[in-house]
Amino acid sequence: MRAAEAAVHLPKSYRVRAELEQLLVGLGEGDAVPAERELALRCGVSRETVRQAMHELLVEGRVERRGRGTVVASPKLVQPLSLRSYTEGALSQGRVPGRELVSLGRLEADEELAAELDLPVGAQVVHLERVLLADGNKIGLESTYLPAGRFGEMAETFDPAESLYAAIRATGVVFTSATERIETVLASPREAALLDSAASMPMLLLHRTSLDAGGVPIERVRSLYRGDRVAFVAALRE
Amino acid sequence: MRAAEAAVHLPKSYRVRAELEQLLVGLGEGDAVPAERELALRCGVSRETVRQAMHELLVEGRVERRGRGTVVASPKLVQPLSLRSYTEGALSQGRVPGRELVSLGRLEADEELAAELDLPVGAQVVHLERVLLADGNKIGLESTYLPAGRFGEMAETFDPAESLYAAIRATGVVFTSATERIETVLASPREAALLDSAASMPMLLLHRTSLDAGGVPIERVRSLYRGDRVAFVAALRE
Repeated sequence: MRAAEAAVHLPKSYRVRAELEQLLVGLGEGDAVPAERELALRCGVSRETVRQAMHELLVEGRVERRGRGTVVASPKLVQPLSLRSYTEGALSQGRVPGRELVSLGRLEADEELAAELDLPVGAQVVHLERVLLADGNKIGLESTYLPAGRFGEMAETFDPAESLYAAIRATGVVFTSATERIETVLASPREAALLDSAASMPMLLLHRTSLDAGGVPIERVRSLYRGDRVAFVAALRE
Repeated sequence: MRAAEAAVHLPKSYRVRAELEQLLVGLGEGDAVPAERELALRCGVSRETVRQAMHELLVEGRVERRGRGTVVASPKLVQPLSLRSYTEGALSQGRVPGRELVSLGRLEADEELAAELDLPVGAQVVHLERVLLADGNKIGLESTYLPAGRFGEMAETFDPAESLYAAIRATGVVFTSATERIETVLASPREAALLDSAASMPMLLLHRTSLDAGGVPIERVRSLYRGDRVAFVAALRE
């Protein structure tokens, strides 16, 4: 019944996509995918139809561009949803984590940020923005907001290429609980440029607020991860 | 500095998007958004530029189509990541949950499904596919796979408009732990049609395997949620 439904209703790009998926099964990570022109001939459709199907596979991280060609992508980086940092999550997956500084500065907390960090409106906040890398690939953009009264000094001596969580823990602070919200959004042009991605590519957006053992907010984090390169996994218990 | 950067690098649709966001701040849920033609005049850009910015706001669930117009959307349904079911999560958010049956049948476990459900390859599996609703809106598509040897009888008497978790618990089974993987994908044409959405809209895809108190798999679930209507939230602890 599904097959009949498919034959009647599904656009050509969907049939082509199924054929391309079959093709990928036979290829290994990093193998070249045949050129659009060749695939169009093979599937008996236009290059435009192949391009549409290929775009979907790109968005989902099944294939990636390399130079002027397209190759089978590596599996997504699967980050555990936990109190641990990006760095620790990447290491647990056997990836080499890296961070590139985009900006480090101070700002005054607006109403929303003040409420989230339990600070008075206008309080000084350190803002650290970094690109996250896994095995040298840009996979995320992390914006961290820290109360300057508590972490301002640390932020000035801290090496932004290193783990922020390790630096915060070194001050004696214990990450005890956090709330994390996950949704999907499209990258803005600035975000896409920082992540070597294209604008309007689906991203996973995470907002986290972490609390210490006394229930005091440590940080507010906005992380944007490339949807084609990252997945999250949660271990749920009673 | 950001403003200068914006003036130089950002495409027009991004500036228009910022203007539209400002406009939305002044409107309430369900209020009509001015027509594209009017917005194009007001922002001094083409209708195509307005359309691009509006498309991004649609994908992110800030606005939604109503009849021939566009209105300010309701806030996303925020589902807790927990061992509870969709039904319980929706109720906890003050939404009215609903389910519509798409298909109920049996299939033989292939290698992957057999491994996930700890069954021999070829074992009978019940497959239940339902559209999930919140306040009458289609927000997700849930595919559940249950070992037929254990749940086949229940599946035949169970009312698919009701909570599956409640029916499973009524057999004495306790949901004790689960693993959930979250990523973003594009809707296929069939999925988009079932969800009254458009193909190629970003979705949140969740894969869950739930275990009982003895560590035996209860179910394997593939849930696809509309990215414009749903977010997830996790409470993380040590």
